[in-house]
Parts: sequence; structure tokens; C-alpha cells
Amino acid sequence: MNDDLKDYLKTLVSDVDVALDDFLPMPGETPGAIHEAMRYTIFAGGKRLRPVLCIAAAEACGGTQATAIRAACAVELMHTYSLVHDDLPCMDDDDLRRGRPTCHKVYGEGMAVLCGDALLTESFALLAKSEPSTRYSVGDMISELASAGGSRKLIGGQVLDLEGEGQQLNKEQLLAIHEAKTAALLVTSLRLGGMTANASAEQLAALSDFGYSLGLAFQVIDDILDVTQTTKSLGKTAGKDVAANKSTYPSVWGLEESRVEAERLTRVALDALGIFGERGARLREIAQWMLSREH
Amino acid sequence: MNDDLKDYLKTLVSDVDVALDDFLPMPGETPGAIHEAMRYTIFAGGKRLRPVLCIAAAEACGGTQATAIRAACAVELMHTYSLVHDDLPCMDDDDLRRGRPTCHKVYGEGMAVLCGDALLTESFALLAKSEPSTRYSVGDMISELASAGGSRKLIGGQVLDLEGEGQQLNKEQLLAIHEAKTAALLVTSLRLGGMTANASAEQLAALSDFGYSLGLAFQVIDDILDVTQTTKSLGKTAGKDVAANKSTYPSVWGLEESRVEAERLTRVALDALGIFGERGARLREIAQWMLSREH
Repeated sequence: MNDDLKDYLKTLVSDVDVALDDFLPMPGETPGAIHEAMRYTIFAGGKRLRPVLCIAAAEACGGTQATAIRAACAVELMHTYSLVHDDLPCMDDDDLRRGRPTCHKVYGEGMAVLCGDALLTESFALLAKSEPSTRYSVGDMISELASAGGSRKLIGGQVLDLEGEGQQLNKEQLLAIHEAKTAALLVTSLRLGGMTANASAEQLAALSDFGYSLGLAFQVIDDILDVTQTTKSLGKTAGKDVAANKSTYPSVWGLEESRVEAERLTRVALDALGIFGERGARLREIAQWMLSREH
Repeated sequence: MNDDLKDYLKTLVSDVDVALDDFLPMPGETPGAIHEAMRYTIFAGGKRLRPVLCIAAAEACGGTQATAIRAACAVELMHTYSLVHDDLPCMDDDDLRRGRPTCHKVYGEGMAVLCGDALLTESFALLAKSEPSTRYSVGDMISELASAGGSRKLIGGQVLDLEGEGQQLNKEQLLAIHEAKTAALLVTSLRLGGMTANASAEQLAALSDFGYSLGLAFQVIDDILDVTQTTKSLGKTAGKDVAANKSTYPSVWGLEESRVEAERLTRVALDALGIFGERGARLREIAQWMLSREH
């Protein structure tokens, strides 16, 4: 990663953290336990990929971080809620996330369910107070987020994932899971950023194309890292897909073909950015960095 | 209940069910399991109290069922999601709801968590497509719903409830739970109805006062019925509060004083309706019916 991108990401992640700290209920507010749990899961050193994409997309459409910050925080809250619920014993049953014990390991299962519920609710609360742009109302933005998070996309992907456990899935089934579980929220992160910047329909369509291929590439890489990296370097349990007999890109496509596919998807993603010209440079850099990550 | 109210409620509940059927994803949509689970929990013969209050409040403010129907369905979705999650083994661990096995008994715990998540997300999706009124934007309505459902209200109430299990609570602690867990969403059901009807600030305040006292009265009666009725007549497990050593109005106040308190709260609720004159008649009837229910 070049120094300029490093600085950009560092500043942006720090700004997002300040905003999240500002938006979330204080830990001292009653009932204290849930506000503590919400902050524990939100401030766990996440990469803030979705907020970064949201803000970079706004900038690519001529907008600013200031107008995109609520949307950026909203997508992060939605992403984090889905991790908290996915980690539950009745789902993926994971003890470790971002190098720390998962929410239910620290606060108990009941509180983890409620913590996820609260983060999800807060994501809509936050976005509801956004400024509308000329083309897009707050209702349009809420619809966009609710659609990405709904039973046909984010939640539906986890359902397919649960149903597919212990089965050998084919390429189409695996693709359907990753489209719903990963790509949909990346697409919406980008589109919401664009909407806050009053993007044209063509710009939103380009962001959708970019996010779709980027999301799939991201998931292929995630699957590759799960089999090639250690628990320590990942900050979450490595090898758990294999242990759970879970279908992944490497298990379905083979490791080498998965690498080729990740690169192909990234090229498709980058091609979609042509419409933004020079303004798309940051999104291009971010995509290249996401593909080259090793944990 | 007089025949006129009976007809009003019957028609309204039927209209709400038709709208919910129209708004919710079809059971055949992929992934089928979650859409089936969502419909199983939503079409379980609920009394639809919150949608009824929402629409009656809209009418009291000069609005119509047609403009309030989305808000009415949204509050029902939020209420139902909270029941699905509250019934989970890691929360209240209940097997029976509205006379039928609870969601996790039929579809498993993981699916029940996801089903609740999907209903919650759908409640915002639905409301996001409402028409704004002159005074209230869609963002205002989403803020209202998210606030009632958030970590300080609906979810916070369940946290306090979980924390209070096995302890003898005092009157203030019990009141805090019921304010958050029951009264808040009734207040918001009424206020959202008012907002779709472009209610004045004074009308919204009156609806808040009405809903607050009605909600507490409703909860006192719920607690009384839990100790005086059978599982069959309730359609949910009777005596479970006592079995769980849970603090309730009867256990804290005594049965007779609980009855007196329910009547007092209902009088306070009815007094708040004065501002609506004749238009408030329906809300008055509904409150009286809610107080006199026996299951």
C-alpha cells in the first residue's frame, strides 16, 4: 500500500470511529450492559471497509465525507450486527472475532442477540437523520439499506449458508451465498455514498457493478486466507471452514483457480470505475489493496 | 364489546392481514425457509393491537386507514420480531406463543434469530416507502420507530427483564421494564398513526400520554392474567412468570392492588383523549376493551 492511501485510510477510519462514538449511546446510559456490548463489538479494530467504500464512493461522485458520514456509520452498524448474530452458537458458533472473544462469549447469548438487534435498529436510526440529496430522499436511502440487509440479501445469504453446512455445494450455490451475504452490503455501501452525493443513475449503476465484483473478489480472498493463514494472523479462527466441512471457493474451485478468479473479478470491478475518470482513483486503489491483503 | 367495535376490529384486523400478506416476501421466494418462518410468526392469530391503535390514532387526527396502513404493519412487524427473539432459549425460553409452537421450536434457533432480524429489517423497509405528511418526513417516522425499538426502549426493556430474572424487583424497577418493553411501542404505534395524519404537536403529545398509561395498564393486566388464567385460554404458557420467579405487578403490588392500578391507569389514559372530542371515541372504546379482556 502506498503512503498516500495509508494516510487516507488511517484518517478516514479514525473519523468514522469518532463519528460512531458520537452516534452510539454512551456506555453509562441505562441499561449499561447493552451499551457496553454494542461498543465492545463496534470498537473491535475492524477495517471499516464498508464506511471507507461509502465515503470514497461519495467523493467519486463529487460529494464529501461530511455528508456521507451517517451512511458510512450506518453500513458499519449493519455489518457488525450481522457478525454478532452469525457468531452465535446456534449459527456459526465462533469464539473469536477480530482477535478478541466474540460478543456472546463475553456478554452471554441473550445479550448478544439483543446487542445485534440494537446495532441493526441503530443503523436505521442513524440513516434516518441523514440529509436528503436533490435526487434521493431519506426514504430512498432507508429502502436501499433495508433491501441489502433483508431476507433476500444479507439475511438470506446466512440462511443459505446455514442450509449448506456439511454439504458440498456447486459453484452456483456458492455464488448465490456470496452475492447475498457479502456483495449486497458492499454494493449498498457504495450506492449510499453515491446517493448522499446526489449521484446520477449511471453513476449508481457503475457503483453497483464495481461493488458486486469487488464483493465477490473479497469473499474469494477471504476463503483463500482461511485455508492459507493462521488464526493469529487472521485475528479469527483459521481453518474453520474446512473444520465445519463448509463449501468455499478453494474447496469448490481449487486454490489456484480461486486466485485466478479473484484477480479476474477485481479487473471487472476496476473496469466499472471508468465512468468516474480521475475521481475514481481512490476506489481503484482501495480495490487493489483489498485484493492484495494477507489477513 | 359492542357489535360496532367488534365489526370495526374485525374489518381492521382483516385489512391489516391483507396488507401484511401483500408486503411480505412470498413463501416461494429464495430462501424459502426464512420467508415461511416470517409468515408463520406473523400470521399466528395475533390481536393486531398495535396496528389497530395506529390506525385508530390516524382516524382520531382526521386521517385514514389507507395512509396509516404501512405504519400499522411496520409496528406489527417490529412487535413480532421482539416476540420471536424473546422466546429464544437464551432469553425467556418459551415453547408456546398464540397457541402454537414458537418459531425456534418449528424452524430451529438459528432460523428464529434470522427470522426476527428479517422482520425487524422489513419493518423499516415498509415504513421507508410511506408517504410523508406536511409536518412529518419519512425520516421523522423512521426515527420514531427506531427510537421505540432501540436499546433505550424495547430492547433495553428486555435487557432489564433478563437482568431482573430470579430477583425481587421493586416498583420502580418493574415500572422501568414495562415502560421500555411495552409502553414505548404502543406510544409509537399511536404517534406514527398521528404522523401519517399530519397531527399537531398537541395531538401527538396527547397520543403519547394516552399510549403510556394504556401500555402500563395493558402490562398490569397481562401480569394478572398470567396468574389467574390457564395456558389454554391464554394461548401461551400460563404461570410462567411465577415459575421463572419473575417479578410481576401481582408479585410486587399484590393482585387486588394490581387490579386497582390497572383501572387507575386506564382512567388516566382515557382522560388524555379529551383533545380529540368525538373523534377519540374509537380509541376510548379500544382502551376499555383492552382493560376488560380475559385472555
